Amino acid sequence: MEVWLIGIGMGRVEHLTLEAVAAINRADLILIPRKGEEKAELAQARRRICDEVLTNPQTVLAEFDLPVRDASDGYEGGVLDWHEAIAGCWERVIAVHPGALRVALLIWGDPALYDSSLRIAARLADRRAMTVHVVPGIMSLQGLTAAHAIPLNEIGAPFLVTTGRRLRDEGWPAGVDTLVVMLDGMNSFQTLDPAGVRIWWGAYVGMPDQIVEAGPLSEAGPRIVAARQAARDRNGWIMDIYLLRRDPGAGAPGRGSGAAARP
Amino acid sequence: MEVWLIGIGMGRVEHLTLEAVAAINRADLILIPRKGEEKAELAQARRRICDEVLTNPQTVLAEFDLPVRDASDGYEGGVLDWHEAIAGCWERVIAVHPGALRVALLIWGDPALYDSSLRIAARLADRRAMTVHVVPGIMSLQGLTAAHAIPLNEIGAPFLVTTGRRLRDEGWPAGVDTLVVMLDGMNSFQTLDPAGVRIWWGAYVGMPDQIVEAGPLSEAGPRIVAARQAARDRNGWIMDIYLLRRDPGAGAPGRGSGAAARP
Ligand SMILES: C[S@@+](CC[C@H](N)C(=O)[O-])C[C@H]1O[C@@H](n2cnc3c(N)ncnc32)[C@H](O)[C@@H]1O
Ligand SMILES: C[S@@+](CC[C@H](N)C(=O)[O-])C[C@H]1O[C@@H](n2cnc3c(N)ncnc32)[C@H](O)[C@@H]1O
Repeated sequence: MEVWLIGIGMGRVEHLTLEAVAAINRADLILIPRKGEEKAELAQARRRICDEVLTNPQTVLAEFDLPVRDASDGYEGGVLDWHEAIAGCWERVIAVHPGALRVALLIWGDPALYDSSLRIAARLADRRAMTVHVVPGIMSLQGLTAAHAIPLNEIGAPFLVTTGRRLRDEGWPAGVDTLVVMLDGMNSFQTLDPAGVRIWWGAYVGMPDQIVEAGPLSEAGPRIVAARQAARDRNGWIMDIYLLRRDPGAGAPGRGSGAAARP
Repeated sequence: MEVWLIGIGMGRVEHLTLEAVAAINRADLILIPRKGEEKAELAQARRRICDEVLTNPQTVLAEFDLPVRDASDGYEGGVLDWHEAIAGCWERVIAVHPGALRVALLIWGDPALYDSSLRIAARLADRRAMTVHVVPGIMSLQGLTAAHAIPLNEIGAPFLVTTGRRLRDEGWPAGVDTLVVMLDGMNSFQTLDPAGVRIWWGAYVGMPDQIVEAGPLSEAGPRIVAARQAARDRNGWIMDIYLLRRDPGAGAPGRGSGAAARP
């Protein structure tokens, strides 16, 4: 058996690569998880993609309910149990379709970026003969930089991709002037000293409801907090991401001097 | 005028998104830089993409020679002068096609990642009325993680994208256990203490000649050095990228404990 994890970008058909379209059409079975209510729109996006690009009449779509995540056991334990539970779900759906040699999942963005499907597939691969294949997809961080027409990196300089929780717990990390922050439910940029920091923010990037804001963190921060709350109230859910850049040299002394002029 | 920077992934038509195909076909003028000899294959990939997906008979392809980069002035100065020189080239080609309202460039990978086209477009935008638009494309780092079927991040943990030069000059940065290293002509991983470090390496990822190697750095490192040299001798040029992951906790004390089990 082959498991294909197919990156679909931000759920618009236009974000699919030609490779993704071909992989969808080569699948015998496509697993479509139903998520919680607030993510119904994301399951919907997967169905719409299949409607629009799937032309192989042999391909079967199988919807299944995702287990609920138990967070009582602490973050790590909860996550690993949850992966195990999802692996069990995949197995049960696959068992109902024993003829399916190519099983596919449509993964939001790219399967490599803050997504559990590779780890779940690895659990399955421990139990049965199968190979795992990945088709890369446009990531939310690319949707963000495209929406603002900005580069990820300063010339020759590094950037760090991190989470809202890390930013809150650890502050601005040493040695890097550009951060991309994901998985942040709490506007964690508010915990930073805004001096010399610019922010480029986006919610629902690459999607029909896309909203963007940018500017010096001191001014744009409050605007973002308000825009985020309003959008969340309107839609019932939100996904957002942002890039923070600070003046080179604002960080710890002793760093290299490779950071350069603004784009 | 609109300038469209269109990410094309690793030069295979399959890496194009449907949005990229549409943007290519909406362009009035596509600028195709001719690079140095060793990059002839990359210019070739752009022409092939146009051959395969361009169906708009109105679209004009305009090839032009890239200026040579003067590195005598130090790294920064050399780069900025080079951007200015390229902006001048773009301007001259555009001036020959005054009716072109939508001007496109096909950008290797994604325009946001270690690419100068956004900075060059910004220079042009300082001089004439125009807007800059970005179509995201599959990046080499996604080609790498897809080829190895590995995640970029450990669960809830950050990752740093950096350059070979930075890794050589500054060593393993504090506070992060995953590094993606690009723009490395020198196998800079050799400057690290390999204890507790794994490497996933790829050259020509996503391309017909793709080569990958992975393993503990102590064992895989010498294999990679040899494979890289052989491939470079064979093809006359090489582009490679790698992901390094060290055991969580191997770094400086005082970091958070969010890094978790291997995938
Ligand atoms: C579980 S991760 C999945 C990331 C996904 N695999 C990718 O490649 O982008 C979910 C996080 O991605 C970001 N995200 C995903 N889609 C987004 C969108 N359309 N707009 C803004 N942020 C998004 C948010 O930070 C969100 O908390
Ligand atoms: C100037 S940067 C351009 C990056 C590009 N914009 C992207 O999105 O991947 C060139 C570097 O990208 C990496 N790279 C680009 N294409 C690659 C490929 N097919 N295989 C391996 N590395 C690649 C190498 O590290 C190379 O030094």
